[in-house]
Amino acid sequence: MCGIFGVYGHREAANITYLGLHALQHRGQESAGIVSSDGERLFTLRKMGLVQAGFGSSEIEQLPGAAAIGHVRYSTAGGSHIKNAQPFAVDYQGGAVAVAHNGNLTNHEPLRRRLEEQGSIFQSNSDTEVIVHLIAKSRGATLAERVIEALKQVEGAYSLLFMEPRGILAVRDPMGIRPLCLGVLPAGSSPDGSSQPPLAGEGERRSYVVASEPAAFELIGATPLRDIEPGEVVQIDESGMTSSRPFAAAARRMCLFEYVYFARPDSALEGASVYQVRKLCGKKLIEEHPVEGANADDCVVLPVPDSGVPAAIGLAQQARLPYEMGLIRSHYVGRTFIEPSQSIRHFGVKLKLAPNRVALQGKRVIVVDDSIVRGTTSRKLVGMLRGAGAREVHVRISSPPTKWPCFYGIDTPTRSELIASSHSVEEIRRYLTADSLGYLSLDGLAAAVREAESAAGTANGQPGHCHACFSGDYPVAIASDERHHHLRVV
Amino acid sequence: MCGIFGVYGHREAANITYLGLHALQHRGQESAGIVSSDGERLFTLRKMGLVQAGFGSSEIEQLPGAAAIGHVRYSTAGGSHIKNAQPFAVDYQGGAVAVAHNGNLTNHEPLRRRLEEQGSIFQSNSDTEVIVHLIAKSRGATLAERVIEALKQVEGAYSLLFMEPRGILAVRDPMGIRPLCLGVLPAGSSPDGSSQPPLAGEGERRSYVVASEPAAFELIGATPLRDIEPGEVVQIDESGMTSSRPFAAAARRMCLFEYVYFARPDSALEGASVYQVRKLCGKKLIEEHPVEGANADDCVVLPVPDSGVPAAIGLAQQARLPYEMGLIRSHYVGRTFIEPSQSIRHFGVKLKLAPNRVALQGKRVIVVDDSIVRGTTSRKLVGMLRGAGAREVHVRISSPPTKWPCFYGIDTPTRSELIASSHSVEEIRRYLTADSLGYLSLDGLAAAVREAESAAGTANGQPGHCHACFSGDYPVAIASDERHHHLRVV
Amino acid sequence: MCGIFGVYGHREAANITYLGLHALQHRGQESAGIVSSDGERLFTLRKMGLVQAGFGSSEIEQLPGAAAIGHVRYSTAGGSHIKNAQPFAVDYQGGAVAVAHNGNLTNHEPLRRRLEEQGSIFQSNSDTEVIVHLIAKSRGATLAERVIEALKQVEGAYSLLFMEPRGILAVRDPMGIRPLCLGVLPAGSSPDGSSQPPLAGEGERRSYVVASEPAAFELIGATPLRDIEPGEVVQIDESGMTSSRPFAAAARRMCLFEYVYFARPDSALEGASVYQVRKLCGKKLIEEHPVEGANADDCVVLPVPDSGVPAAIGLAQQARLPYEMGLIRSHYVGRTFIEPSQSIRHFGVKLKLAPNRVALQGKRVIVVDDSIVRGTTSRKLVGMLRGAGAREVHVRISSPPTKWPCFYGIDTPTRSELIASSHSVEEIRRYLTADSLGYLSLDGLAAAVREAESAAGTANGQPGHCHACFSGDYPVAIASDERHHHLRVV
Amino acid sequence: MCGIFGVYGHREAANITYLGLHALQHRGQESAGIVSSDGERLFTLRKMGLVQAGFGSSEIEQLPGAAAIGHVRYSTAGGSHIKNAQPFAVDYQGGAVAVAHNGNLTNHEPLRRRLEEQGSIFQSNSDTEVIVHLIAKSRGATLAERVIEALKQVEGAYSLLFMEPRGILAVRDPMGIRPLCLGVLPAGSSPDGSSQPPLAGEGERRSYVVASEPAAFELIGATPLRDIEPGEVVQIDESGMTSSRPFAAAARRMCLFEYVYFARPDSALEGASVYQVRKLCGKKLIEEHPVEGANADDCVVLPVPDSGVPAAIGLAQQARLPYEMGLIRSHYVGRTFIEPSQSIRHFGVKLKLAPNRVALQGKRVIVVDDSIVRGTTSRKLVGMLRGAGAREVHVRISSPPTKWPCFYGIDTPTRSELIASSHSVEEIRRYLTADSLGYLSLDGLAAAVREAESAAGTANGQPGHCHACFSGDYPVAIASDERHHHLRVV
Repeated sequence: MCGIFGVYGHREAANITYLGLHALQHRGQESAGIVSSDGERLFTLRKMGLVQAGFGSSEIEQLPGAAAIGHVRYSTAGGSHIKNAQPFAVDYQGGAVAVAHNGNLTNHEPLRRRLEEQGSIFQSNSDTEVIVHLIAKSRGATLAERVIEALKQVEGAYSLLFMEPRGILAVRDPMGIRPLCLGVLPAGSSPDGSSQPPLAGEGERRSYVVASEPAAFELIGATPLRDIEPGEVVQIDESGMTSSRPFAAAARRMCLFEYVYFARPDSALEGASVYQVRKLCGKKLIEEHPVEGANADDCVVLPVPDSGVPAAIGLAQQARLPYEMGLIRSHYVGRTFIEPSQSIRHFGVKLKLAPNRVALQGKRVIVVDDSIVRGTTSRKLVGMLRGAGAREVHVRISSPPTKWPCFYGIDTPTRSELIASSHSVEEIRRYLTADSLGYLSLDGLAAAVREAESAAGTANGQPGHCHACFSGDYPVAIASDERHHHLRVV
Repeated sequence: MCGIFGVYGHREAANITYLGLHALQHRGQESAGIVSSDGERLFTLRKMGLVQAGFGSSEIEQLPGAAAIGHVRYSTAGGSHIKNAQPFAVDYQGGAVAVAHNGNLTNHEPLRRRLEEQGSIFQSNSDTEVIVHLIAKSRGATLAERVIEALKQVEGAYSLLFMEPRGILAVRDPMGIRPLCLGVLPAGSSPDGSSQPPLAGEGERRSYVVASEPAAFELIGATPLRDIEPGEVVQIDESGMTSSRPFAAAARRMCLFEYVYFARPDSALEGASVYQVRKLCGKKLIEEHPVEGANADDCVVLPVPDSGVPAAIGLAQQARLPYEMGLIRSHYVGRTFIEPSQSIRHFGVKLKLAPNRVALQGKRVIVVDDSIVRGTTSRKLVGMLRGAGAREVHVRISSPPTKWPCFYGIDTPTRSELIASSHSVEEIRRYLTADSLGYLSLDGLAAAVREAESAAGTANGQPGHCHACFSGDYPVAIASDERHHHLRVV
Repeated sequence: MCGIFGVYGHREAANITYLGLHALQHRGQESAGIVSSDGERLFTLRKMGLVQAGFGSSEIEQLPGAAAIGHVRYSTAGGSHIKNAQPFAVDYQGGAVAVAHNGNLTNHEPLRRRLEEQGSIFQSNSDTEVIVHLIAKSRGATLAERVIEALKQVEGAYSLLFMEPRGILAVRDPMGIRPLCLGVLPAGSSPDGSSQPPLAGEGERRSYVVASEPAAFELIGATPLRDIEPGEVVQIDESGMTSSRPFAAAARRMCLFEYVYFARPDSALEGASVYQVRKLCGKKLIEEHPVEGANADDCVVLPVPDSGVPAAIGLAQQARLPYEMGLIRSHYVGRTFIEPSQSIRHFGVKLKLAPNRVALQGKRVIVVDDSIVRGTTSRKLVGMLRGAGAREVHVRISSPPTKWPCFYGIDTPTRSELIASSHSVEEIRRYLTADSLGYLSLDGLAAAVREAESAAGTANGQPGHCHACFSGDYPVAIASDERHHHLRVV
Repeated sequence: MCGIFGVYGHREAANITYLGLHALQHRGQESAGIVSSDGERLFTLRKMGLVQAGFGSSEIEQLPGAAAIGHVRYSTAGGSHIKNAQPFAVDYQGGAVAVAHNGNLTNHEPLRRRLEEQGSIFQSNSDTEVIVHLIAKSRGATLAERVIEALKQVEGAYSLLFMEPRGILAVRDPMGIRPLCLGVLPAGSSPDGSSQPPLAGEGERRSYVVASEPAAFELIGATPLRDIEPGEVVQIDESGMTSSRPFAAAARRMCLFEYVYFARPDSALEGASVYQVRKLCGKKLIEEHPVEGANADDCVVLPVPDSGVPAAIGLAQQARLPYEMGLIRSHYVGRTFIEPSQSIRHFGVKLKLAPNRVALQGKRVIVVDDSIVRGTTSRKLVGMLRGAGAREVHVRISSPPTKWPCFYGIDTPTRSELIASSHSVEEIRRYLTADSLGYLSLDGLAAAVREAESAAGTANGQPGHCHACFSGDYPVAIASDERHHHLRVV
């Protein structure tokens, strides 16, 4: 998974982008990059690690101009290397272009083979390089024409930001599998809220911002306008913002897992509040899988922090059971943690989560998480809760069993590693050593999203989502070698 | 504030200490240090920053032996420098000694002057160096005798760990102002739970561990034994563990602020669960300061994460109001954050906390925090909540107004910077622009601790605590120049 | 300028390459890179800075296999960026290929334009990327065929090393403008001279090594075989070493400046010892430009260390004048030197060279350097020598006036910055404030090379060299925009 | 060995000190430190490694004020740790004081024991800490009085710079074993030679500078005044410069090895040019140990660069034999070199020096070095020269056999490691596999110094030097445990 951000028409474009990426940091911690434009040239900086670690004031100064795009990249198994960091920037016959990509192309291997046969060279493992080659080979007169021609050849999930010296292009794939949102920022505004007199030529124009999630707008003081529509191409340059729909219509299929886990709770995607969806999932989960005889005196609800918190709140409210902090999360466990010796490997979850005995002792415990992948962490947690005195441990998962790998940009393990692909719920319960285990049904999850849309008055009668990881129903066909290849790396 | 940890008699002493410091990281992020002993010599390593950033496997290898002590230090205004990092280690006539200190001496300036008059030199600004000078000047035959002689001359708050090549000494000041706890670890156990055959000579002995908080024991698989008592000296060496009480008896006065803010919720101090105390504070807080006409349909309770969470849970349970995540905390804001340009300074709380509109829109909001220092952050949060649609904002603080600086080891600002020292509650409410503001009374706080003790069956009829920051009642006199000096730096 | 190195068939290929690059470090300090092959895949590592700073044992471990190529790159004005570091490695239809390049293509801009028109993308500013595109577009069946097809389209100076998983290719341009040498290393030998039993399958085969200069062979214990010939393609793989001459014959024109300045004194290029050439230059220089009435009592010869040392030795021997260390060179001035404040900028040569008063006081001084570029450093040196007591300062330069920029790989300034392009010798003398100034004639320089060849019995009747920087006689035509462009960056 | 530098009364004191340390970098590369004073407070910065690597403009800005002292420290076997870096700075009853020390106390162990018995604590292994303790215990009214009282208790070699907020003190031990020199810099001058209007209050006063060697004055544009005399105390503060001689008179005994190896060739110590001494040593060396039948046709003289260069020049001039660069030194070998794998350890001298075959082939070679320590490097060099074609190898050493460890500040190995302590010259010759071996006699060395003094008109009839490393005649008694202890670490 990745996060992308862009801004056009703001004198502090690189700063704004830095802040936008900071707000999207949860979507990728492996690398961060910003490309800015001063109207004539592009300036590129990419770093491994967090955006706040790599982009200090001296770095931002190397990124002049009033437009910028940025990218944060998730750590994937094999490909952690600066050459895969984005935005990807090249020179070609049309000049300079940079691209930031969230998603995954399902036909990138056949495309890459075809391009190699035509004499193309590849410097990264990323499917984004394929898109750039297609743009360079296009005969289109403008970047927009080239991009459209290129994207007509690709399949899969993509939310994309392109930058050339004179403008930005934002594109969302025809099914809208990955989110992408548009916002606006008054020109001359400063991200801290103060306003400054407009620069000569800055006029009354507004600055447009684009981000994977609207939560990125809050921090910079921007106002969310709307989601970019599936299949929409938005062009932002000195003549303002224009929109087109060059691709054939397709049913919308935004990723349900964004609601379950990936997006920030304070984002709203396609009109539905992520927080509200999660709370409703918790509510429906305990309706579907009640805990027999649970009462407020001997039974507590606790989240696996932080991803399980909203569902646990919803579940506790629905069940009228006390919500408790039964697991304490360390704020000091990050990706740079070094386990110092052989004998203390595999500390994993113990370093991150600690049991809070006083909340657990003698209790029947309902522990709420968003999903189970391999099951190993959940099993350790159940043991930890029992070790801290829980009388019973009931595991409730606020999404359906994750049985299928994602080919659209989430770095899930291969099928064989997903415990739910080969084990029944009862088998998983036994493996976890839980007293009971309940997953939310796919219908329940879909209903939660619908209700949250209704609550916001945004229900659009197009309830379609991608739920391939739960159902195996892949909305975009997977090239056969992709299917094979992507079982390991996404 | 600082955290200290020690272990004696474990083949992986430095590893264990690393993990113990990791669990105490919330008590200090400025610097971390470990001193180990192989029975003959001490090995010292101190680094600026987090323990996990500075102590990888190659560093741990430089710390051989079966005993170790460690220290994490809080960032203070002026003194961020490696020379102030601890443990402090020196050679003197008794050989090598290292010390890790949590607390603050109230007479260290007169002592330092006296020592300088006697020809002593000082390489740091830390009061800990004073203690070491007093030890070196003692005529005691053993380290324990020297330490006791030295500590009889100092006043203030101290939990101390001393290490010489052949043993460890743990001392808590006569009033027990700072916590210190004792635990045990089976010899031959590995921190990951596996057991190994005892080393030759390791025998059946158990390894003792000492830590600022018992939450450090959970991670390493140790069993908490008890608090070290106020005024107690615990000596651990190859002949086992011995305890003495060389200091004149004094009423116990452990710091109440440990319960309010500093300690981890999964710690129990002097028998009272920190989590339970905080929940009870929330309960009593809403009893003392109810929100007129609040009902579950239009009123929500939300914590300022993470320190306000337990009190908010307790408050919501008591008031039968929904607990919601109304403020989302970023996991990527730490002390290394670099704000990249002039115009985006003062982002402070916006980078750390974002409003969750869907939970706030149109609601009467009760927002719960542990304390108010200068008031600037709280004022921003009230504005943020209103900006996100809250209809009313009621601020509830789970401790009394913080009016007085701490001279016993917490790095509080000077009196003049503490808003409550010069403003009434109503004035503060107006400054915050809150609809109402309520602080928990000192009696309410004390009662919460008592109830948590009762719940654990540990109430010992000695309910005395230090509450000087709330009451100005300083249990240890402050030397006049200390008083002046420590208004700025602690 | 750059240095390249390759080895095939040695179990410690990356180590050997590391050492080879260490010996070629004088040819480039900006970046260093190594690509190794385990027979199946290529492994790439590139770092900014010196090879010894970037390649420790953990880096070398990331470079497995029995073949490797490496590159050190000179710091050029504008393009100091990791993306320009070499070897350049890509995937294309033929698989993986890496290339290390010393030289410069004179038609790379028209080639790049043509490639861009065909849809190619460029990620670096380097002309090497052009070569790789041409290879990828070739229809040749083997890498050798592709390389030959590609190189038939380029013009300019190039010594190249290509690596694919199963072998190495070394190519020198048809005029042999840049040097390239072949050597051999017994298989199973270790670079420290010990020998090891051959690995299974290692057989009796020898390891071949290729380097910009034979001085790189000494360190690794290899035996120099011969120069790779102008226009020669040498292929090294599991079937041994084969040579071909696919390019049209051209007169040999190796760069004379390699003898004057660039190459190590302990290298022999095309049979002529660099040290001997330089000494002969000194000898001829004083013959061409004697210092009137110089005698051993009042006149001393001193080099500008280190590049002027061999010529000064030769000059002093010829003139029977004492050779003295009149300028002391600091060993601690490197490219990472940071001048700490405004007011001490421009220390330049003073930090590097100090006058040795005792050797200068009251003397007539003949100071010998290899060349004058802008003249500013020489002017400072003359002032420094006078300030230290020299009675007269006679400057002697062991090469002709440098009047023309190099388009073949040496990073010289633009014409207008070369003092000799616009000033007569007398004008330069006045600018330097020297008592006299003498440059070696081009005939003298050529004769020095011939004599050194004769001394070695290698004179081959093909005395042609490139002396464009002295004469303006460019052996390879410069594309008009190249000519313009390369006036600034090479 | 170490280098020290100080300046008083210059607005760019820290910059000047930085440059001074840069010029003294050859005296110590392990750590560098600067302490500055703004008249009220001291500011300290110490770093491991070279001064140019640790002190950039941001570091220099942390060192305000018009006075500063600095120190570079040599790498010693055991004690490479930041806590041993200097200047050493403490607070004591007299305020703040910092000290930079070149030399070694021979009675520091008994002094340290005595101080520990009095209750002192030690944080470093350095004997400098002893001096500071003695100062702190003194009852003197001024720093000068305290320093004098302290130094009356110590024995050994010391050149010292002390700084308190209001002035600097420079002291040289009564025998003057280590050098120390005084210079002057016009106030308002900038180190780059430009002058600035005096600051208010700067008046017409001159800035004084003090350095281990006068070569440090050249770089900063200062004028050497004179050596600080053995036993002299020079005080520099706002009332100018004053000198006193508080110690009992002693015969002067400056270290001869400074002339042989340690000092820069462009320094003059006690009136004798180091370069001239070294050349005279070469001259006398070939007189004492001629090479039978050597003539200019078949015999060459070559230095081991760089320390052997001046003696080789003198030797070649005397013997009328050609001086040649027979060994090429790499400029890229420093202390940070990482040998990347097991099998290429012990590359040592091969990485640093390469043979220049063309200068050696078929020749009788006289190779000149300044000293032989263990003999291992010399033996490798002899082998390298023969391997490169030398017909005979005659080793000439421009000092007497090094038989005794230095207790006065040079980090020599223990006696047993010094090959000359247990082997005759003939035995050493055989070990080196040299055709002949000749050392300069002690008389010859002394005569060389005398002649250089005469040449400068500075011969003062006090020819006494310390030559303990050659003769075992230690001018200052060594405490018995020092003697034992310092056999390993100095």
